[in-house]
Amino acid sequence: MINFPKPTVEQFFRTYMISDFTVSRDEKRLIFSSNLNGNVNLWAMDLPAGFPYLFAQRDESVSFIKIDPENRFVLVGYDKDGDENHQIFGLPYAGGLPQPLLTGEPDEKYFFSHLSEDGKRLYYMTSKGNPTYLNTRVHNLEDGSDRLLLEGVEGVTELSAVSDNEEAFVYSRAFANTYVTSFVKIGDEMHNLTPDATKVHIASDPVFTDDSTVYFVTNYDSEYSYVAKFDIGAKQFSRALEIAGESVESLKWHKESAAFYITTEKGVADSLYRVDAEMENLQKLDAPVDIIEKIQVTKSGSLYLLGKSSTVPHNIFRLENGAEWTRLTKNIVLGLESDDMVEPDVVTYNSFDGMEIEALLFRAKPENDNGHTIFWPHGGPQAAERKSFRSMFQCFLNRGYSVFAPNFRGSTDYGASFVKLVEQDWGEGPRLDCLAGIEWLFDEGISDRDKLFLVGGSYGGYMALLLHGRHPEYFKAVVDIFGVSDLFTFYNSVPEHWKPMMERWIGNPERDKERFIKDTPTTYLDGMVKPMLVIQGAKDPRVVKEESDQIVAKLRDAGRDVEYLVLDDEGHGFSRKENEIAVYSRMLDFLAKHQG
Amino acid sequence: MINFPKPTVEQFFRTYMISDFTVSRDEKRLIFSSNLNGNVNLWAMDLPAGFPYLFAQRDESVSFIKIDPENRFVLVGYDKDGDENHQIFGLPYAGGLPQPLLTGEPDEKYFFSHLSEDGKRLYYMTSKGNPTYLNTRVHNLEDGSDRLLLEGVEGVTELSAVSDNEEAFVYSRAFANTYVTSFVKIGDEMHNLTPDATKVHIASDPVFTDDSTVYFVTNYDSEYSYVAKFDIGAKQFSRALEIAGESVESLKWHKESAAFYITTEKGVADSLYRVDAEMENLQKLDAPVDIIEKIQVTKSGSLYLLGKSSTVPHNIFRLENGAEWTRLTKNIVLGLESDDMVEPDVVTYNSFDGMEIEALLFRAKPENDNGHTIFWPHGGPQAAERKSFRSMFQCFLNRGYSVFAPNFRGSTDYGASFVKLVEQDWGEGPRLDCLAGIEWLFDEGISDRDKLFLVGGSYGGYMALLLHGRHPEYFKAVVDIFGVSDLFTFYNSVPEHWKPMMERWIGNPERDKERFIKDTPTTYLDGMVKPMLVIQGAKDPRVVKEESDQIVAKLRDAGRDVEYLVLDDEGHGFSRKENEIAVYSRMLDFLAKHQG
Repeated sequence: MINFPKPTVEQFFRTYMISDFTVSRDEKRLIFSSNLNGNVNLWAMDLPAGFPYLFAQRDESVSFIKIDPENRFVLVGYDKDGDENHQIFGLPYAGGLPQPLLTGEPDEKYFFSHLSEDGKRLYYMTSKGNPTYLNTRVHNLEDGSDRLLLEGVEGVTELSAVSDNEEAFVYSRAFANTYVTSFVKIGDEMHNLTPDATKVHIASDPVFTDDSTVYFVTNYDSEYSYVAKFDIGAKQFSRALEIAGESVESLKWHKESAAFYITTEKGVADSLYRVDAEMENLQKLDAPVDIIEKIQVTKSGSLYLLGKSSTVPHNIFRLENGAEWTRLTKNIVLGLESDDMVEPDVVTYNSFDGMEIEALLFRAKPENDNGHTIFWPHGGPQAAERKSFRSMFQCFLNRGYSVFAPNFRGSTDYGASFVKLVEQDWGEGPRLDCLAGIEWLFDEGISDRDKLFLVGGSYGGYMALLLHGRHPEYFKAVVDIFGVSDLFTFYNSVPEHWKPMMERWIGNPERDKERFIKDTPTTYLDGMVKPMLVIQGAKDPRVVKEESDQIVAKLRDAGRDVEYLVLDDEGHGFSRKENEIAVYSRMLDFLAKHQG
Repeated sequence: MINFPKPTVEQFFRTYMISDFTVSRDEKRLIFSSNLNGNVNLWAMDLPAGFPYLFAQRDESVSFIKIDPENRFVLVGYDKDGDENHQIFGLPYAGGLPQPLLTGEPDEKYFFSHLSEDGKRLYYMTSKGNPTYLNTRVHNLEDGSDRLLLEGVEGVTELSAVSDNEEAFVYSRAFANTYVTSFVKIGDEMHNLTPDATKVHIASDPVFTDDSTVYFVTNYDSEYSYVAKFDIGAKQFSRALEIAGESVESLKWHKESAAFYITTEKGVADSLYRVDAEMENLQKLDAPVDIIEKIQVTKSGSLYLLGKSSTVPHNIFRLENGAEWTRLTKNIVLGLESDDMVEPDVVTYNSFDGMEIEALLFRAKPENDNGHTIFWPHGGPQAAERKSFRSMFQCFLNRGYSVFAPNFRGSTDYGASFVKLVEQDWGEGPRLDCLAGIEWLFDEGISDRDKLFLVGGSYGGYMALLLHGRHPEYFKAVVDIFGVSDLFTFYNSVPEHWKPMMERWIGNPERDKERFIKDTPTTYLDGMVKPMLVIQGAKDPRVVKEESDQIVAKLRDAGRDVEYLVLDDEGHGFSRKENEIAVYSRMLDFLAKHQG
C-alpha cells in the first residue's frame, strides 16, 4: 500500500541496554537499570508484569541494585561519567532521587558486597585507606557505626559471601583474571576453599547452603570450571558437579526447594541448569537467550533472567512453572524483528601453529552487501566475542559490511589453558591468530584482499593499532576505540586496584622491556599509514585518555590522516544514548569515506 | 532506618506527558505519544497490557496517530520544533522511522481528517493553495492520486466526519472559538446541521450512525452544549440529549452495541456517560480521572481513556466489563504518591460587578509553606484552569508557594454567555476579575499584600503583562511565558488560518484602535517596575517571538530588571524534557531571588 524503505541504520541507534535488575523479596517489584530515557537510570515495574516507571534519576551508570528485604529502602551504586569510582547511594522504596550513603572523595571506591537478612548491616569494600587491595567493612544502617572486617593484602580482596548467622565470611583474592583464590574466615581462622592456594586457579561465586557449608565455582586442577563444596567443620574440599566441556559460570542457591541454579559457558553461548542439593537430577533448562547475564531466584522459586542474543537486545524474562519463559520487558530494535538482523555463523580455522580458533562470522545480507568486511578483534583480552547483541555490529551489517570476530588465544570459554595464552604475550600469539583469521577470510573468498577494514575497542583497539603498525597492507582504514597504544604507559596508568594483577597479565616493564617494546603499538608508528579514527572516553579509568592522545599526536606530527573523537562524559564504554549515536555515526561515515 | 529528605522539586521535573493514543482495530496494539525518552515520540504496547517499546523516533510533537484498519501501516502527524506546521508521515505497522507522506514546504500544513474503512483513502485538509481557509482533499494511498473535495471559504473549513459509504461528508467552519457551524455535503448539496448558521453557536464532533443520520454536539440556542441529531433525508434538526448544567464535549458512537459514549465538562472537571441509540438509559460512568482528554471505543466495546487529575499525570486506562478501570500506563511523579502533592480547593468569589468567579486554590502544605502566593491567570483565554496535573504548579507548591488560578470571565465550562465575555474585551472585564480575585485572597487572609507573585502564559502572559503595567503595586515580581505584549502586532502575526477568527475574538485594530491601545500591555511600560522574567519559544507560531523581544527590549531600554529565556527549539509550549527542566529551574530561581 505505502512503500516503505528498507530498515536503516538509524533504527539500530535506538536500542536500549538493560544493565542490571533485581526483584524485591516479596516479588512485587522489579527494578532495572536502563538508558531508556537517554542516560542510565533505574526503572521499576510492579510484578507480575507491568508498565515501567522511572524509579531513580541520576543519569549515571549503575553498578548494583539491592532492595532491602523489608522494602524500606533501595541501595544503588553509581560512578561519575563512567570513571568507575563507584559509590553507594540509598533511596526510599517509593523511589526518588538517590542520596549519598557510603561515599567519599571523587576518586574513592565503595563496592557493595552484602546486606544482612534484616536489612540492617551493609557489608562493603572500599579503596579508602587501601586503594590497591581494598578493605572490607560493615556499616550499621541503624546507628551509622562502621567497622573494619578485613584489611586486603597481596591481591584485591573482596567479601563474596556471608553466612546467615553472619559469623562466616568468604573472601576472594585476585592476582589475575585467571588466578583468584577464595577463603572462608570465621573469627580469626581462615581456610582456603581449595586444597592449595598457590596453584593458579579461580574460585568464585560462593554460596552458604548452611552456616558451615560453602558451595562455589572453581577450575582448581581442571580445564573447565565446576561446582565444588567446602565443609567448614571438616575443612574438606570436594568436587560436587562437573558438566563435560562446559565451564560453570555462576551458582545460585534456592534454599526453599534445596536446589541450585547454574549457568555455564561454552564457546559463544551459555546454558542454564537446575540441580538438587545432592547434585542429582541435573536438569537443563532451555534458556530464552544465548547469553545469560544474570539470574535471580526468589523465595517462591521464580527464576528471573537478564540476557541477550545476537539479534535480541537485553531483556528480562521469568520462568513460569519451571517450563515457560515470559518476557517481562520488550526491548527491541526500533521497528525490527530478529529476522531483519544477522545471526552469526560459528566458524573455525587453524592458526599459524595449528591451533583451532573459533570465530563469529556475520555475513551482510545480499541485498545490503557492500563487499567489504570488518575485522573485529574483541576486547578483554580475557573475554570472548559471543552471541551477544551489539547494535554496532548490526549497524555495520545494515550498511553492508560483513563482520568477522575471532576468539584468538587468550579468549575465555575455551578452557583454562587457552585463556592463559595471552598472559605476558599480548602481541605475538593473539596477533598471529588474527593474521591467520584474515588469511582464512581471503582463502574462503569471504573477503577480498583490498576490502578489509579493522575496528577494535580496548584490547581490541590495542590489537587494531598493533596490526595497523605491523601489517598495514591488509587494511583500508582502522578504527581504534579506547585502545592501549603503549604498554609502558598503560602499565602505570591503570586503576590502583588493578596493579596486583598486572604482573601475570602483562609482565614487568623493566624485566620484560624487550617484549614490551616489541608488543607496543607505538613502536610501529612508521607502519601506521592508513587512515585512522580514534575514539576515546575522557573519563576512561582503564585505558586513560593519554593512551589515545599520544598516538594521535604522534601520527599527526608524522602527517598521517587521523580523526579523533573524544567523549567528555564517558569512560570505558558509551552509556549515554547521544554519545553512542555520535560514535556510530562517526564510524559509519569514516568507513564509508574510505571504501572507495 | 535510613533518613531520606522530603521530596524535592527535581522529582516533579521527571514527569512525562502522554499527549495522544490510539488502539488498533484488532485491539492488539496501543500506540501513544510521550516524551518518555526526552522528546515526544511514539511508543507502543502489545495489549491486553504490556511493556512499552519505542515505535517511532522523530523527536517532534505528534498531532495525530491513526492505525490502518488492516494493520499495514500507521499514519502520524508531526510539526517541527513546535512550529505547528503539521504534516503527515507514514510508517510500517512494525514501527520504525516515519517517512514523509503528505508534506510540502516547511510552512505548509497538512491536517489528518479520516481514513477510509479499507485504509485506502486518506482525507485531509491542507493550507497549500488556501492558507487562510484550508482545502479538503482525498489522497488515494494505492495509486497516489489526490483529489480536491472542498475549497474552504469564509472560515477555516475542516472535514469532520465521513459516512461509511463515503458519499456524505460533514464539514465544520470556524469563525471564532464560540462560532463554529457544521454542514453536511452530499454531492453538490449542502445542509447546515443546525436550523440557522447565522446564529452564533458551535456544532462539532459529528458522527454518522448510518449513512443518512448525523449526531453531533452543539450549543445552538442553549447555554450548554448538548447532543443533537440531523436527519439528512428529512433535513431535520432535533435535540437528542441534554445533561443539565453540563456541556457535552465529545461524542463517540459504538455501532456494535448501538451506544454513544459522551464526555461532558462542568467547571473544573469532566464526566463520562454511556447512552443507547435512542438516547435512553443514560448511565454515568465513574471516570478514573477528573480531566478526560480522549476516549476510544473499540469494536469489542472496550473503552480506552486518556486523562489526568490535579495530582495524577497523564495515564491511559481501559474500562473492563463496563465497571472497573485498569490503568495501562504507570506515569507517576518520580518517587511520589498523590498524597505527596496538593489537590486544589474549588472556591468562588464575587467580582467587581457581582459576577461569581470560580477559582482553584492550591494551598502549600504547612511543612513547605513559604508564605508567598502565585497568582496564575490561565491561557486561552477561552479555556479554563481545571483539575489537571501541572508539574509546574506542584513544583511551586513543593517550594512552598500557594497558587491561585481564577476562571475569570471568558473561561470555558461556565456556559456560552460567560465564555463570550472576553471577546473584544481582553483587557477590562477579565482584568477586573483578576483584581477582585487578588483582593479576595487578601481579604480571606490567604495571601499577604506584600507576598504575591504573578505568573502567566499565553493569554495568561498577556494578562500578567497588563496587570504588571497597570497594577504593579500588587506584585513582587512577574513571570511572562510567551505572553502577547501588543495587540496590534499580535493581530498581524498569528497563523494565517487563525485570521478569520480574529474579528470576533479581539476586534479590528483600525475600528477598535482606542480599545486596542487601552488593552495593550506595552501601553503601560512605565508601570512595569517590578522584576520580570520573560520566557519564549523561538518557533512559537501563536505568540511569535517578536512579542517578547519587543517588550524585553523596551523595558531594558528603560533600565528595568528583565531576564529573558528563549528556547530555540520550542513553540507555544515545552515538549522537550531538558527545556521544561530549564524553564522550571529558571522560574524557581527567579521567584526565590525576589522573595526577600
